[in-house]
Amino acid sequence: MKIVIIGATGTIGLAVQAELAQRNEVISVGRTRGDYQADITDVASLQALFAKIGRFDALVATTGAVHFGSLEEMTPELYQIGLADKLMGQVKLTLVGKDYLNDGGSITLTSGVLSEDPIRFGSSASMVNGAIDSFVRAAAIELPRGLRINSVSPGVIAESMPSYGPYFRGFLPVPATKAALAYSKSVEGAQTGQVYRVS
Amino acid sequence: MKIVIIGATGTIGLAVQAELAQRNEVISVGRTRGDYQADITDVASLQALFAKIGRFDALVATTGAVHFGSLEEMTPELYQIGLADKLMGQVKLTLVGKDYLNDGGSITLTSGVLSEDPIRFGSSASMVNGAIDSFVRAAAIELPRGLRINSVSPGVIAESMPSYGPYFRGFLPVPATKAALAYSKSVEGAQTGQVYRVS
Ligand SMILES: NC(=O)c1ccc[n+]([C@@H]2O[C@H](COP(=O)([O-])OP(=O)(O)OC[C@H]3O[C@@H](n4cnc5c(N)ncnc54)[C@H](OP(=O)(O)O)[C@@H]3O)[C@@H](O)[C@H]2O)c1
Ligand SMILES: NC(=O)c1ccc[n+]([C@@H]2O[C@H](COP(=O)([O-])OP(=O)(O)OC[C@H]3O[C@@H](n4cnc5c(N)ncnc54)[C@H](OP(=O)(O)O)[C@@H]3O)[C@@H](O)[C@H]2O)c1
Repeated sequence: MKIVIIGATGTIGLAVQAELAQRNEVISVGRTRGDYQADITDVASLQALFAKIGRFDALVATTGAVHFGSLEEMTPELYQIGLADKLMGQVKLTLVGKDYLNDGGSITLTSGVLSEDPIRFGSSASMVNGAIDSFVRAAAIELPRGLRINSVSPGVIAESMPSYGPYFRGFLPVPATKAALAYSKSVEGAQTGQVYRVS
Repeated sequence: MKIVIIGATGTIGLAVQAELAQRNEVISVGRTRGDYQADITDVASLQALFAKIGRFDALVATTGAVHFGSLEEMTPELYQIGLADKLMGQVKLTLVGKDYLNDGGSITLTSGVLSEDPIRFGSSASMVNGAIDSFVRAAAIELPRGLRINSVSPGVIAESMPSYGPYFRGFLPVPATKAALAYSKSVEGAQTGQVYRVS
């Protein structure tokens, strides 16, 4: 399979790339690194990216920013960061990318455990992750040509604990290699409309 | 209790008002009707509303618009309608309204069954409903002064079947009076961070 990973140069993306590259052709995309560069918040940038790459069999997103801040300090503008980047960035990837997918191809988005298991400072992340998981369930029943879509909802990644640890006390860290298996199941399996929780 | 219902003049809002007004002072707010008018998408409008109403014990939102359209015709701009209105409108209500709530007071938002049980044309509604349910779980653990927040996630309302029926074949219609009980549990009970599914 020809697989495009957006966010391939990040903590989770590197592990997904390592898992999938054992059996597939992987094209890595980052914002500043990778085989290609693109910005998920910018539809024109995504159109230019896919015009260069051509058709493929799977699209994986392991990227997306949100603002972390206490509920007291959050404003509509600060929520907008996560809505525009992690949520609508991945939705834009879906809308633009689906037309470049071969029949039966798949889209895999990334949400996260905070949709169900919140932390202080995480209300924007929770909101966005819940939106992604529900979007995937809905989009799955409308995609044409046997296209599939799933999300992976990882717990806090072990490799991220040096920076995220203080915010995730009591959460079992998930090795990135374990999270990568859920992306493999989404891409190399046949399910659709699923939220793969990895904890 | 003094209870402010935003969307009180709508299909669900009227039933919630009828349930709660049996035992409480209810202030009804609509966009064009009700005791007061306000626009949930506009922070200044909400600030002006609450400045007039003064402090209260419970804030209920039974309002929120999203665009229904096939995945094929959806664009980032069409998703933005639901994000700006039903999602961020209710989040703005939460951010502005919480400062007018008496200690131990509650906020009750409205999501809907499509977060878990999608229909054709409903990907924006699913996204927004999932975001609201996860936001409520997260906000609940950060609200000060014993303030509480829950969401009610109703199935399709029986009174709405004349217009929504064709999109919700096979869904059991929920009488608005039954949905209203979940709002009563949120307001007159003591739970927080809950999603009350009414089906
Ligand atoms: N790390 C965790 O513990 C954890 C847990 C649960 C969920 N998640 C979610 O998983 C996703 C990835 O997290 P991560 O920790 O692996 O992130 P990361 O290490 O910060 O990597 C981010 C990746 O996304 C790329 N990127 C950044 N902005 C982009 C843009 N606008 N357009 C296209 N690509 C962009 C980066 O490219 P460059 O390298 O070129 O800058 C990089 O490849 C995020 O959505 C995060 O919320 C993470
Ligand atoms: N009906 C269903 O089957 C169903 C099922 C599940 C979930 N829901 C959700 O429940 C909520 C209410 O649905 P509904 O069918 O009861 O709606 P509805 O009958 O259309 O009533 C909408 C209410 O919201 C008010 N409103 C509209 N725009 C507003 C704004 N920008 N700011 C403040 N108030 C505004 C209206 O005021 P005016 O009357 O003054 O215009 C009215 O009181 C929506 O979020 C909907 O998605 C509905």
